Amino acid sequence: MEKTYAEIEKKILEARDISLVSHINPDGDNIGSILGLGAALRKMGKDVHILKVDDIPKNLLFLPRVEEIKPMEKRPDLLFVLDSSDEGRLGDGSKEILKANYIINIDHHKSNTLFGDINLVDASMSSTGEMVYDLIDFLGVELDNEIATPIYTAINSDTGSFRYESTSPDTLRKAANLLEFVDNKVEITKNLYQSRTKVQTEVIKIVLNNLESFDDLSLIIGKISLNDLERLGAQSDDTEGVVPFINEIEGYDVAIFLKEKEEGIVRVSARSKEVCDVSILCEKFDGGGHKRAAGATIEGNLDEAIEKLISAYKEL
Amino acid sequence: MEKTYAEIEKKILEARDISLVSHINPDGDNIGSILGLGAALRKMGKDVHILKVDDIPKNLLFLPRVEEIKPMEKRPDLLFVLDSSDEGRLGDGSKEILKANYIINIDHHKSNTLFGDINLVDASMSSTGEMVYDLIDFLGVELDNEIATPIYTAINSDTGSFRYESTSPDTLRKAANLLEFVDNKVEITKNLYQSRTKVQTEVIKIVLNNLESFDDLSLIIGKISLNDLERLGAQSDDTEGVVPFINEIEGYDVAIFLKEKEEGIVRVSARSKEVCDVSILCEKFDGGGHKRAAGATIEGNLDEAIEKLISAYKEL
Repeated sequence: MEKTYAEIEKKILEARDISLVSHINPDGDNIGSILGLGAALRKMGKDVHILKVDDIPKNLLFLPRVEEIKPMEKRPDLLFVLDSSDEGRLGDGSKEILKANYIINIDHHKSNTLFGDINLVDASMSSTGEMVYDLIDFLGVELDNEIATPIYTAINSDTGSFRYESTSPDTLRKAANLLEFVDNKVEITKNLYQSRTKVQTEVIKIVLNNLESFDDLSLIIGKISLNDLERLGAQSDDTEGVVPFINEIEGYDVAIFLKEKEEGIVRVSARSKEVCDVSILCEKFDGGGHKRAAGATIEGNLDEAIEKLISAYKEL
Repeated sequence: MEKTYAEIEKKILEARDISLVSHINPDGDNIGSILGLGAALRKMGKDVHILKVDDIPKNLLFLPRVEEIKPMEKRPDLLFVLDSSDEGRLGDGSKEILKANYIINIDHHKSNTLFGDINLVDASMSSTGEMVYDLIDFLGVELDNEIATPIYTAINSDTGSFRYESTSPDTLRKAANLLEFVDNKVEITKNLYQSRTKVQTEVIKIVLNNLESFDDLSLIIGKISLNDLERLGAQSDDTEGVVPFINEIEGYDVAIFLKEKEEGIVRVSARSKEVCDVSILCEKFDGGGHKRAAGATIEGNLDEAIEKLISAYKEL
């Protein structure tokens, strides 16, 4: 790791102009890591561009300088890709973005395809935010609110507020050091955990009324139809938080949430408490993720998706 | 503080037989703090008795040696009262229990009445668990799983998994040091945050279907009737988690949950995000707590309680 850090430092010191790219369906770890590393690089005197490939969820719009995340204007020289397991995560424009002269890939997904010129990949880390913390520490950049708030947000959101198994004592120590520099921690909690909209609340009501539990499989499934989503006028981030909510119900190792995205296309979000590796389950449908949190897309209607999932799950 | 710690240490060293008492409606901070300090005192060679004054919530029964929490058998010599703002918290048998020869009162509620012979009260602390951590550190007792698991649980539960404003960088550092010694952190998360029962899920469904929001007051109220509770066969801990859930809805500074406990008696749980000091609101009804989390009991039916609360809230 030390050697990789030193290589990354060398590249940063040589560069004048550095770009960092977010991924599609960006989450707190992605946006927080990019803004935090971007702020640190700016503090080192670099020209920093943060590239947008998808809309930023509303509950991350409080982050400092989030408004500077913009579509690519010119081919990047040195490019950081954070929290993205493969090039596809950069969306439709990925080909253009990846024409960068040099790519540094920093990620904590074990399925990372090592597509960078330098690859800093560590699946033992709770979050990409934690890896960015270590890099900034190595670079010797002093923390301030603009660096600490997004990285604290990244780590906090990707560990479900330090609840997930991936949270180590070091995760908490890094969070402690960051929190020293956070100007407004109430804002972080409010945005990450106390910002359920009326539509999200309606979604949860519908999901609760249609739960299907399979006691012998230790599996519980929640679902919502395209019809209901359209009736509520739900946007894509209005279903955020549903799968952790289902996973809070006791007695089931695996919690799955199914969302009918389009006619015949179902988005799957899976969580597990301590036994099943849901990334393996999702890989069967060309998805992926982590042991305790993963996702995939299945063709079919909701009932067909449930059937396919159950048969794949039984095979595990 | 140092002086108070030294006085407590002196008393512990002099004693052979030490009792610790839980409070009524015990929570994670209370039970965790008592079991953790009890384990540390045992490690110092003391005979330790942990006194039960009320039933232990199901989701805390995983804690090491929780089964040794028992009703009082003989008058305590040295007695620790933890996480209890006044003697009334010890329930009906409080008079007998408080006949102890010497009482050490450790608490983080600002309303603490300082009823002990020694009072270690610090409202700046996130939890009593955090204060017990500091005491054990002062005593020089080495951490192990039996000490660390309950204290980590205490801090974690009283900070809502490190989300509340009371969480300081030091809170996270202490949690990090404890986590080094926790044998099974998955068990803690499962019990604290992934153990919502079927009945609790039904309660949330009912509350969601009957939410009353007062946009101009930045107030949202959820409620459940005695009738519904009886129909569901709900126990007292089946309404745990409802008020934090309501407080997760965006756009309201204050979230209140009302539970009709008996005919004409309504239990109030209040939370706030960043403005209102709900302990002052609850004190108007002889309740109390913290700025961001407090409780009280109001006479009347649910509608009368809402009326009384709103008029008290408007006065603030």
